Amino acid sequence: MSTAYERFTAHIAELSDILNSISILKWDARTMMPPGGAVTRGAQLATLSRLAQEHFISSTTARLLDEAEREIAGEADDSYHRRAVEQTRLYHDIIRRIPLDLVSEKAALEPVSEGVWAEAKKNNDFAAFAPYLEKQVALAKRQAEAVGYSEHPFDALVFEYEPSMTAAKLAALFADLKTGLLPLLSAIVANDQPLERDLWAADFPIDQQKAFALEIARQYGYDLSRGRLDIAPHPFEISFTRQDVRITTRYHANYLPMALYGTLHETGHALYEQGVDPALTRTALTLDFLGKYPVGGTSYGVHESQSRLWENQIGRSREFWEVHFGRLRHTFPEQTEGVTPGLLYRATNRVRPSLIRVEADEVTYNLHIMLRVEIEMGLLDGRLRVADLPEVWNAKMQEYLGVTPPDDARGVLQDIHWSGGGFGSFPGYTVGNVMSAQFLEAAHQQVDGLADSLTGGDYAPLRGWLTDNIYRHGRAFSGEELLVRSTGRPLETDPYLRYLESKFTGLYNLPG
Amino acid sequence: MSTAYERFTAHIAELSDILNSISILKWDARTMMPPGGAVTRGAQLATLSRLAQEHFISSTTARLLDEAEREIAGEADDSYHRRAVEQTRLYHDIIRRIPLDLVSEKAALEPVSEGVWAEAKKNNDFAAFAPYLEKQVALAKRQAEAVGYSEHPFDALVFEYEPSMTAAKLAALFADLKTGLLPLLSAIVANDQPLERDLWAADFPIDQQKAFALEIARQYGYDLSRGRLDIAPHPFEISFTRQDVRITTRYHANYLPMALYGTLHETGHALYEQGVDPALTRTALTLDFLGKYPVGGTSYGVHESQSRLWENQIGRSREFWEVHFGRLRHTFPEQTEGVTPGLLYRATNRVRPSLIRVEADEVTYNLHIMLRVEIEMGLLDGRLRVADLPEVWNAKMQEYLGVTPPDDARGVLQDIHWSGGGFGSFPGYTVGNVMSAQFLEAAHQQVDGLADSLTGGDYAPLRGWLTDNIYRHGRAFSGEELLVRSTGRPLETDPYLRYLESKFTGLYNLPG
Repeated sequence: MSTAYERFTAHIAELSDILNSISILKWDARTMMPPGGAVTRGAQLATLSRLAQEHFISSTTARLLDEAEREIAGEADDSYHRRAVEQTRLYHDIIRRIPLDLVSEKAALEPVSEGVWAEAKKNNDFAAFAPYLEKQVALAKRQAEAVGYSEHPFDALVFEYEPSMTAAKLAALFADLKTGLLPLLSAIVANDQPLERDLWAADFPIDQQKAFALEIARQYGYDLSRGRLDIAPHPFEISFTRQDVRITTRYHANYLPMALYGTLHETGHALYEQGVDPALTRTALTLDFLGKYPVGGTSYGVHESQSRLWENQIGRSREFWEVHFGRLRHTFPEQTEGVTPGLLYRATNRVRPSLIRVEADEVTYNLHIMLRVEIEMGLLDGRLRVADLPEVWNAKMQEYLGVTPPDDARGVLQDIHWSGGGFGSFPGYTVGNVMSAQFLEAAHQQVDGLADSLTGGDYAPLRGWLTDNIYRHGRAFSGEELLVRSTGRPLETDPYLRYLESKFTGLYNLPG
Repeated sequence: MSTAYERFTAHIAELSDILNSISILKWDARTMMPPGGAVTRGAQLATLSRLAQEHFISSTTARLLDEAEREIAGEADDSYHRRAVEQTRLYHDIIRRIPLDLVSEKAALEPVSEGVWAEAKKNNDFAAFAPYLEKQVALAKRQAEAVGYSEHPFDALVFEYEPSMTAAKLAALFADLKTGLLPLLSAIVANDQPLERDLWAADFPIDQQKAFALEIARQYGYDLSRGRLDIAPHPFEISFTRQDVRITTRYHANYLPMALYGTLHETGHALYEQGVDPALTRTALTLDFLGKYPVGGTSYGVHESQSRLWENQIGRSREFWEVHFGRLRHTFPEQTEGVTPGLLYRATNRVRPSLIRVEADEVTYNLHIMLRVEIEMGLLDGRLRVADLPEVWNAKMQEYLGVTPPDDARGVLQDIHWSGGGFGSFPGYTVGNVMSAQFLEAAHQQVDGLADSLTGGDYAPLRGWLTDNIYRHGRAFSGEELLVRSTGRPLETDPYLRYLESKFTGLYNLPG
């Protein structure tokens, strides 16, 4: 006879299979599918999504969950079994609060709204998009009311991406960051000077770019027997269990950093997914009940902390370029004639206030996020109206970054997120940045000789610490819990600001 | 209010979506998936297969089917609506006889068994594969007993691929063929003489091979906005609706015909799938209820008749090489120095008793099939044991073809079919060969100037006739019905034997 927990787990494993199949179809649609397949692929995704929903809200789930809860009641609070059951209960309760007509209204609006947004961006026509954004805001408010919250409607939405975050916590986090970031940015801008030469004017053949980046990904620890790298216009990582974790990047023939850092960013996500305890495969602890992905990690923020850590803190370090300079020279001998590791370090860390979030450097990136999150909160609590957005956007850009978009296409219309109703997802990027430094500082304190191993290009000790403290647990612990368990502290901005100040004080010869 | 037929169709469309999702997962597993993904992919396939099965045998299907049957009772016997309902009823009756645990056992075993087979073939280690083949035979026997049959368990299995075939009918077909083929083969072998030169000693870069073959596929009519060509060790065609029809091939750097004719063979399958009436998308008439593929065509035999027709009767004709010789010379100028269309025609039509089915010529091919079908029948009725297979295989090869494999990799392990449990599929190849000549003979009788258009490299008139008479109907008519409707005759071997005798009498200067 099987236990109640085993029966519960077998049932959830099927849900996991359906959700992973959906992810395979999405990966294919973004990388391999011929254009003619788009319409029927939509039908396939809609059918599988409905099957997943039916499976999860079925009476079978309710019964197996009740039985499993009774059985695991005596287990330790932090046992995987207990966590799996508790998380299933949590999301089972949430999902049942959302009316079916809201779900179908959102699903029906999404492709229309995204289409209108794409046109509006092309034509620099915010007014055309505004009515659809109004609808998305209205649906988001209904969603927040249905799910419930104690203080701010934004709390209900950010929960889907970063369960331990709230509007109030984010406001405090942003205030701390601004105090550190704004003076640093001013000092950098005042001390800016151009590089001696343009490193990226030459032609870097794409096959060689791929080989170069993938070899570093492999050295980071990306297991290619359980992964692969393809091309996508909007790069992403996606997993179908820890056994099959795929990444994508995009290439610019004359600008190596696009593919290189794109690959290393997604590699950070992939290391997380590949590092999950095999025992958690096909369980509630490697499954996003809300149908978001990446699925194997505990939140957007923790996931982003890993992509940022491996892309920026490791990949844009001086040591990184010392280690990989030889192979870069060997792979691209003519293109890198006269280049030095020091020059590469400076070229891949230039700070410049700019208009576009996805092209921003480490110092300005979070300012782009804050302005978006502040606007989302204002839209949800009624302090802002959609019609005011272009003006508010531009004023905040001027205030935080000292630049004003020349048009809405490079301003309020630049990101796809709002057109799909994805309110609440932006904070994950900044939470991830802040976490990444806190984790890395703790790793340095806890792992003997970690700095030396990184200087030598040996990434195994760092990956080992991250696997032990983060990756292996899947979704068993929240971001907040992982931080406290591994660093002894809740989320705090000091390590991140220390990291940025130290790095850029050196790079820009700022007064110490 | 919707009609009963519309409600029935909407329900079947979901089944179509699940089955097409399964096909996407299978395509991915064979072309893109990293090796580590095999085990969890098996779980995903098993769950989706079970969902498809549950969807189809549900009380909803039974009710909608009853209602639709009453509604379409007055329609013409050959209307698509009536055929869709009748086929659903037929397979609904069959599939409800197959236990759910058998379905999921088969689905879970397939990727594992295929992986073991691939290793065993690489290592020439039949013993490693034998236990998995035993499991597949046991599952096939359970399947045959569950489905039922009147004479031979093989009848229940061949029905899945070629509904109008039985073990007894195949025996008669094989006897007819042997009467024509064996004397022809003897005469050819007696008159064999080596070619003046070896055409394939040079190096043919794979990118150029791909471009050359794909351009001919495009000229045949393969629509790349609804298709793509990838590499697979065992080439196949697969579709996820007519909007997304993919082919694969494999390359040999020194042997152009492998990739070329592999591509043209799969293109024949793809033309069939892409040519289905758009109105049949996501209906019972482009759906294999038994979860086999290619799904949009009516049977393996009819499908194979199209791959063979475009590969062999068109692709290995003298006219083909007259048309494409110029581009071959242009693409591979050094490699084809001194080559003529006549030499290419002879080189791509050499008849030689050989070890490998997929490399066999048109005259010996069916002997490879007969040997496999006889072995399958023996495994199913207990006259043969898995352990005896290498010995039995080699003895039959000697008897039919006069050659003995030097190892099992080039013998009993050469084909993937049995590792996936595909018993009953081999007869389709020979049925397809026979049909292809019957269809092409009819097309020549019915389309004015068809020979001239083929000589000029214009494939549209032939594709048009095939689309009208075969492709557009999807699964609405059986192979036997398509033959009678378009040629006025049931399946007969005379056109096929006439074609072979005429072609090879010329090629080998045989007495007329």
